[in-house]
Amino acid sequence: MNETIQTILNHRSIRSFEDKKLTGEQIEVIVKSAQAASTSSFIQAYTIIGITDREKKEKLAELAGHQRYVAENGHLFVFCSDLHRHKLAAEIEGLETEDILTSIESTEMFMVSCIDAALAAQNAVIAAESMGLGICYIGGIRNNLHEVTKLLKTPDRVIPLFGLCVGYPAKAAAQKQRLPFENIYHQEAYVQDDEALKEQLKQYNHDIAAYYKERTGGKRADRWTEQIASKVSHPTRMYMKQFLQSKGLPLD
Amino acid sequence: MNETIQTILNHRSIRSFEDKKLTGEQIEVIVKSAQAASTSSFIQAYTIIGITDREKKEKLAELAGHQRYVAENGHLFVFCSDLHRHKLAAEIEGLETEDILTSIESTEMFMVSCIDAALAAQNAVIAAESMGLGICYIGGIRNNLHEVTKLLKTPDRVIPLFGLCVGYPAKAAAQKQRLPFENIYHQEAYVQDDEALKEQLKQYNHDIAAYYKERTGGKRADRWTEQIASKVSHPTRMYMKQFLQSKGLPLD
Repeated sequence: MNETIQTILNHRSIRSFEDKKLTGEQIEVIVKSAQAASTSSFIQAYTIIGITDREKKEKLAELAGHQRYVAENGHLFVFCSDLHRHKLAAEIEGLETEDILTSIESTEMFMVSCIDAALAAQNAVIAAESMGLGICYIGGIRNNLHEVTKLLKTPDRVIPLFGLCVGYPAKAAAQKQRLPFENIYHQEAYVQDDEALKEQLKQYNHDIAAYYKERTGGKRADRWTEQIASKVSHPTRMYMKQFLQSKGLPLD
Repeated sequence: MNETIQTILNHRSIRSFEDKKLTGEQIEVIVKSAQAASTSSFIQAYTIIGITDREKKEKLAELAGHQRYVAENGHLFVFCSDLHRHKLAAEIEGLETEDILTSIESTEMFMVSCIDAALAAQNAVIAAESMGLGICYIGGIRNNLHEVTKLLKTPDRVIPLFGLCVGYPAKAAAQKQRLPFENIYHQEAYVQDDEALKEQLKQYNHDIAAYYKERTGGKRADRWTEQIASKVSHPTRMYMKQFLQSKGLPLD
């Protein structure tokens, strides 16, 4: 197994960082790595915002659900879906805004921009981890995108999707076992056998419960399906559709 | 610069593969690398379908726009957004379907599943490339998802997002220069200066035109903004919203 695969398989999210900033060179390597990712039809539909301002980081930490590591890390990146750039490109080519809105405001284009941003982000993550840095994605910035977009001054059609804390790990972190291989990977077609899939999930529940028991000295023994059931029975961020519409993305 | 970062920065899409299948072991390493990626709240909202059946690959190549490399490669993966698994998890925990639909069918949850799938895919890509394999993403499978979902037998709330061809590169490929660093990366907040952003894009146009000139012996000199303007003035895959709705994802 080569070093790169070792880095990938060794991933764990880090939520406690040393008080040591990333250098400009490190940031450049991370962003260039992000940019090297594939992008649908070369549209490069994302923007990365780097935050170092302490007050801004504190505000983002608060908005993301009071997670200290959002404020305390080596560098905070925010990955945004960006379709504003394509409006500018069309303007450079002399097109009128109305000639491009059907395309730019579509569900398809928004999906592409989310995927583009995520591919770039994961390249950034692997580059950072290969340098001995730790990372944690911050989906919590989607708790309150009205405030986040104000803070980051993003124009219409630029949607902050997630944060990414990067820094020098201060505490080791455990690795959580993923879903069984055969639950994630299907051969030739989707396994249309819900009972078989459920059996796999039940087996997985034992593994996850064992992980929590060990990590908490027996205090917790969560099942994966229990966590998921709890999550999906409490809808969150239900303002998203309206928010996207308010930012010029009706997603028709 | 370490080997991992070299692998990342050396990426180029490969569209011509040797007639040599991936081994089971290679596929396992690639899928496990995908699974090692971060996932929002540990929901792991994706499924990977591996296709080796020749007829099925030919059909997918046809649906994706007659791209030969979709049929001719070492292995074809299809990455799907998967929220069906979470319905099963809720059932295991005794919840009724109606108790979870608001959450599972939301725009937020679909965004999360697209991002989860893309993070996993990019890990798969880096793992494959680190082993000397080449890759090409296939967004073209979204041209006709009605047919693709039939072929792959995906249930409701499982959406094939993109294919990923992997294999031994048969032809070298050139690397296209990405957008200027300062156009992708903003410090502290989004640069609210459209004229400055446009100037960067115009400079970038020169670089991209030079790339095409060299690659085509002077026959093409596309500007990036020209390609984008052409793309966004021809809306594609406008059925996406209705398709998602037809597959149990109203995205409210």
